[in-house]
Amino acid sequence: MQSLQQKASEWSGVDTAHAFSIDQTNLFQKLGLQTFINLSTNFYTRVYDDEEEWFRSIFANSKKEEAIQNQYEFFVQRMGGSALYSERKGHPALIGRHRPFPVTHRAAERWLHHMEKALESTPNIDADSKLRMMNFFRHTAYFLVAGDELKNQNQRVPCKHATSKPAAA
Amino acid sequence: MQSLQQKASEWSGVDTAHAFSIDQTNLFQKLGLQTFINLSTNFYTRVYDDEEEWFRSIFANSKKEEAIQNQYEFFVQRMGGSALYSERKGHPALIGRHRPFPVTHRAAERWLHHMEKALESTPNIDADSKLRMMNFFRHTAYFLVAGDELKNQNQRVPCKHATSKPAAA
Repeated sequence: MQSLQQKASEWSGVDTAHAFSIDQTNLFQKLGLQTFINLSTNFYTRVYDDEEEWFRSIFANSKKEEAIQNQYEFFVQRMGGSALYSERKGHPALIGRHRPFPVTHRAAERWLHHMEKALESTPNIDADSKLRMMNFFRHTAYFLVAGDELKNQNQRVPCKHATSKPAAA
Repeated sequence: MQSLQQKASEWSGVDTAHAFSIDQTNLFQKLGLQTFINLSTNFYTRVYDDEEEWFRSIFANSKKEEAIQNQYEFFVQRMGGSALYSERKGHPALIGRHRPFPVTHRAAERWLHHMEKALESTPNIDADSKLRMMNFFRHTAYFLVAGDELKNQNQRVPCKHATSKPAAA
């Protein structure tokens, strides 16, 4: 069976070494807190205004301000800054925390589309940092698609005696 | 609904600030790679020799050497060293990667029992580092118990039309 990171690499086209090239430098020291806040604000402004309702609706139960804070605190922690996210919320636990959301290939691509635009529209992010971050995001998005598929596998086991189609909720 | 970190704090008796006091210092720089290798080797030697078969059997499908490497690479990465774990395996994704295992309160306590003994029997770990690590481990163990319960909640949804007891596999 392919591992999570093998699937992530194959589907994203980004191998693990490129995905984690964010660890070969300190992006937090280079870019600073405000840049990460701006990036996440740009990103979620796009997401919450997305004309594609199927994607926008994934975030409907989360507050925009909270989504922004969760994201930039995680980025700061993961890219060389202090552990803002864990001090407030515990382990990132990326797969576990994405469990409520349908992380499909299509949703991953839409997420990445908005992030690419957000990176372009955020001042003071140099080309090298952009490339490292996009590789990290692309790999991570598909890592979460692979994690989402685990969830579906798990659900099949106890359901083998169920009717094949659950009734609409 | 209580969040993962609220459950982890309540069940472990360790609040988030104490759990992540590992981030107030750099334990990797203080202790060095070999100490983490020794700690994980001591820990898994206990686990794989555990007289309690129910606990030992949780690890039966994993190779001891691999379990040791996964653990010390994660510890090094999380406690101030380089990202050894992610370079090889991707995100730690603690809840996602523990999905195959039954992480019960009882299993958490047995894990912590062995880890406490392993910390005691590993040379060159000062009392302050031991305390920080045990707080981190205790909180994390119960964070994973909380993550495990999410899994069970998830499984109930599509199974509401199934017979109440699935047949033995």
